Amino acid sequence: MENLKNEEFIHHLSYDSVIFGFNGKLLKILVLEYHNTGLFALPGGFVKRNQSLNEAAKEGLTKRTGLKNVFLEQFYTFGEMERYDGNAMKHILEGNRLDTGKNRWMLDRFITVAYYALINYDKVTPVPDELSDSINWYAVDELPPLMMDHKEIVEKALEVLRKNLDRKIVGMNLLPSKFTMKHLQQVYEAILGEDLRRTTFQRKMLSLNVLDRHEKLYQGKAHKAPYLYSFKQ
Amino acid sequence: MENLKNEEFIHHLSYDSVIFGFNGKLLKILVLEYHNTGLFALPGGFVKRNQSLNEAAKEGLTKRTGLKNVFLEQFYTFGEMERYDGNAMKHILEGNRLDTGKNRWMLDRFITVAYYALINYDKVTPVPDELSDSINWYAVDELPPLMMDHKEIVEKALEVLRKNLDRKIVGMNLLPSKFTMKHLQQVYEAILGEDLRRTTFQRKMLSLNVLDRHEKLYQGKAHKAPYLYSFKQ
Repeated sequence: MENLKNEEFIHHLSYDSVIFGFNGKLLKILVLEYHNTGLFALPGGFVKRNQSLNEAAKEGLTKRTGLKNVFLEQFYTFGEMERYDGNAMKHILEGNRLDTGKNRWMLDRFITVAYYALINYDKVTPVPDELSDSINWYAVDELPPLMMDHKEIVEKALEVLRKNLDRKIVGMNLLPSKFTMKHLQQVYEAILGEDLRRTTFQRKMLSLNVLDRHEKLYQGKAHKAPYLYSFKQ
Repeated sequence: MENLKNEEFIHHLSYDSVIFGFNGKLLKILVLEYHNTGLFALPGGFVKRNQSLNEAAKEGLTKRTGLKNVFLEQFYTFGEMERYDGNAMKHILEGNRLDTGKNRWMLDRFITVAYYALINYDKVTPVPDELSDSINWYAVDELPPLMMDHKEIVEKALEVLRKNLDRKIVGMNLLPSKFTMKHLQQVYEAILGEDLRRTTFQRKMLSLNVLDRHEKLYQGKAHKAPYLYSFKQ
């Protein structure tokens, strides 16, 4: 959450981002910890009065990751009454020694537009926002307790990711440009949360006709070297 | 747009619904015409301060169609700056002889959460809202010019519908509980905007394994009677 000037932002509306990265083994997301509160949350922010919604989310992602031109997509807008928790926000403002009177609008009910991003884990140095101590990668099955409905937002993002596994965007954005079949299988396993059979997986991926095969990746014994693949443009 | 009391609603946020029905031949949507303006728009409304977002959209749909428990799903939140058009809203208020001063909040920028609904065309008697003269069914390829970005919203809804054609929700909600293969094919053709080969279509639908086959539909010559189908529960 950048700047807090009352007049600058649309009230009652925020965005939150589930930023996925894959460290070669585990599917992880970025989680913020707010100053002096012990509260964990998804990185998010507000929309300026003269700014497009998608632009605001994109800008927030760039600030947290340093990355531009990243895969970022809306997936759901959360607007239940139950997600409203003025006390949590009050706690965060106080933890930052900010005036709860002046920043009263932040204690109101917010409807939040949720985005998910797929980024190249290796290229990122995460940056916390002004209200937070830290921002860190957490494996999706080892998250700290998240505030408000942020856990539900993560679960919905995972659902969408699973549904989109057949679209090449997932692997394209989470893997380096060339990868082995094993590497690709690991991404899928991390997202699905289950082990896959190597032969079945390979057959399925090749049948989708979205991969180009390249040279072999030589390391150690040549006859065991696996092929490298990339996604077709 | 129901009631207009400033304090009752969340400002800057609206919803709009693309309500699809299938008249046996054409895919249609409901379009409102505002009083004394010549402006056409999707049915929509605002979210009360103490009401969940999805509840607001559901309530709006019931008011316009008389139907409850209808398939209604969010698909995108539109928040571009370009969609903001205070003049159009001013025109609508004036056309309804409403005070633009008192209702100033309605002239502000709105971010809108878009929903699509699939309803049984035969069961509906559409009801206009307070600001409108009429609400009518229009074939998706014969829409009147819609205000603001509503045309874009319809196009995105159609995209989502096409993507979801393999989920049985589409036919299940647009058709009566029992239908012929020809009837089903007509829904698909209406959504896709193209003709399909009868034999290919039938083979594909049967291979999806989502249909139960029932008795034949006897009308006229018995040996030509087509089978009736329903979607598996």
